[in-house]
Amino acid sequence: MNIDNIVSPSLILDKNKCLNNIRLMAEKAKKHNLIFRPHFKTHQSRIIGKWFKQFGINKITVSSLRMAGYFANDDWKNITVAFPVNIREIETINSLAEEIQLNLTLENIESIEFLNKELKYDVGFFIKIDTGYHRTGVSFDIFLTIDKILKLASVSDKLDFKGFLSHSGNTYKAKSTNEIIDIHNDSLYKLSLLKKQYIEKFPDLIMSIGDTPSCSLADDFPGIDEIRPGNFVFYDLMQYELGSCSIEQIATVMACPVVAKHSERKEIIIQGGGVHFSKEFMEVGDDKVYGKLVLLNNQGWKKPDKDYYLIKLSQEHGTLQVSDELFNKINIGDLVGIIPVHSCMTANLMKKYLSTEDEIIDHLSGNII
Amino acid sequence: MNIDNIVSPSLILDKNKCLNNIRLMAEKAKKHNLIFRPHFKTHQSRIIGKWFKQFGINKITVSSLRMAGYFANDDWKNITVAFPVNIREIETINSLAEEIQLNLTLENIESIEFLNKELKYDVGFFIKIDTGYHRTGVSFDIFLTIDKILKLASVSDKLDFKGFLSHSGNTYKAKSTNEIIDIHNDSLYKLSLLKKQYIEKFPDLIMSIGDTPSCSLADDFPGIDEIRPGNFVFYDLMQYELGSCSIEQIATVMACPVVAKHSERKEIIIQGGGVHFSKEFMEVGDDKVYGKLVLLNNQGWKKPDKDYYLIKLSQEHGTLQVSDELFNKINIGDLVGIIPVHSCMTANLMKKYLSTEDEIIDHLSGNII
Repeated sequence: MNIDNIVSPSLILDKNKCLNNIRLMAEKAKKHNLIFRPHFKTHQSRIIGKWFKQFGINKITVSSLRMAGYFANDDWKNITVAFPVNIREIETINSLAEEIQLNLTLENIESIEFLNKELKYDVGFFIKIDTGYHRTGVSFDIFLTIDKILKLASVSDKLDFKGFLSHSGNTYKAKSTNEIIDIHNDSLYKLSLLKKQYIEKFPDLIMSIGDTPSCSLADDFPGIDEIRPGNFVFYDLMQYELGSCSIEQIATVMACPVVAKHSERKEIIIQGGGVHFSKEFMEVGDDKVYGKLVLLNNQGWKKPDKDYYLIKLSQEHGTLQVSDELFNKINIGDLVGIIPVHSCMTANLMKKYLSTEDEIIDHLSGNII
Repeated sequence: MNIDNIVSPSLILDKNKCLNNIRLMAEKAKKHNLIFRPHFKTHQSRIIGKWFKQFGINKITVSSLRMAGYFANDDWKNITVAFPVNIREIETINSLAEEIQLNLTLENIESIEFLNKELKYDVGFFIKIDTGYHRTGVSFDIFLTIDKILKLASVSDKLDFKGFLSHSGNTYKAKSTNEIIDIHNDSLYKLSLLKKQYIEKFPDLIMSIGDTPSCSLADDFPGIDEIRPGNFVFYDLMQYELGSCSIEQIATVMACPVVAKHSERKEIIIQGGGVHFSKEFMEVGDDKVYGKLVLLNNQGWKKPDKDYYLIKLSQEHGTLQVSDELFNKINIGDLVGIIPVHSCMTANLMKKYLSTEDEIIDHLSGNII
């Protein structure tokens, strides 16, 4: 990679770090005898998708039917859409279900009634289970609702029950890695009650869990059959601060040109704002931050002597605050590297990647409008 | 518009409201004898750009050279890039400057030294002035720096000084419309000192201001020659809460399918998350909100009986909290309307618009990667 060729904000992807993240998670899944069904919503890239194939992956997770279509067109034949089914998209569901093993995520009677009438091809389905995040799903202990869903679905000859799917998004609020493990264990306990209730009737039942913090940190997955982490493919500042990864594992960094300097505030203004990073922020100590500075070179990036953060972000501008010494070293027209807070959102906005091996790597956002 | 045809999250644009917003601002500029150079970063659309031409607009503002190129290719011949120049993009600067009247925004010696050497064609420039927002620009009272910039630029036969440009982004933090007017008046006073200092030497000096709250609310622009508001073309929840517009003036609304309901929390889950709205939030009372509910119909949208907000947002999910009564009226598979917090960011993510007259309207994001 020759960074002199970069003229505007670009998302750089370190291919080796990314491959290493995939390898580690694939090995962990294998060690614990888990189906590894990675979530592709983070990278949304056919090229990066192919990197997974080297590790024997042939089942994936996505978060929209549009994303399912993107990967189905690149020869992925087994796709779970881990988002409560949007029944308005029934035409897309039917056209995908004709081509591939499509699994939907269901959690209410109304959707099943609709699908019972409208499905033209076989689809698998998971019931979304809430183990404590309280975003979506049927609570793990409301067997009555689950029974209703299963009974109604059993009427259809097109709906094939696969298992229970949960996502412990509450790990993202954890204050320590121990708390992440506690949440993970709590979820697993709740899921074990569910498994116990239904395994006899459904011996092939799949218990599927998802979040990157748990999948990265836990080394015990009793009762679980499948993992669906996504963010681990790149990691990001949020995962690093949670303790899910080391700084060296983070595989994407934004390269942004320096356009202004304000010595009285020791602030450096970069071309790199909400339209590049998204406005996702996190708290580091008492401060709200939008990204963390790294120093770029033609091989990749390295940490500076101290921690420096993107402290403000508007539509196109980002504001970095640095030490006197660093302020004097960074010049107008230089490129700085910024680790994004949330790599999924940044990749979605940037619409493509520039790899450290000088490849341009696709993203769904840059391909279909 | 037939909303039955909408199957996935879509950004709806009420063309009449949008045209009315443009007309009102064009009339205000005319009344005050101001050059109206609207900022196109909000809509980023060639079709909407053409709507401005009906009102005699032929000068525009953009926030990147890429955006300048997009509009230059659609026959806009006079474009100001209101962002500190990124000197790494010198090739684009030269190719645009060959074709159109391109105005750059400058605020430091280093950029001028670079341009003095590298410019191949004439460009105009504005000096960015900080009147209190403290993001970018030279402080309005540091004549020494301004003199240095002017002196260095005068060496070049390609750099043509146009005037001073400021953006009172601090109006977005105002707690009342009176405070917005106070900030506006304070900025105008500071700019008047600058004008007094330089008008003799530069009798054609243009004093240019920008923010939508000031331009919407103020009715007095002494000493100002040009306005560059952008957001007014659509407005949004942030502008409404600031008092810059009425709810009826907001011209874009997201249409999002309902995918889940949780009666114990009176929460409705929509397909509509950070990848659709951006994660921009605002505080309404003590609550952090990501959008406001409206009820959709084939003619557009209307307010419900009470205020309901999008209270949580993840990558693809949005969570609406509503009353018992409304909870029972909204069904799985329905479409709900959400006024976005920040229409510029939402439009950038959605990459196109669906007009209430059933046109598909372009956005730069959907055209170039």
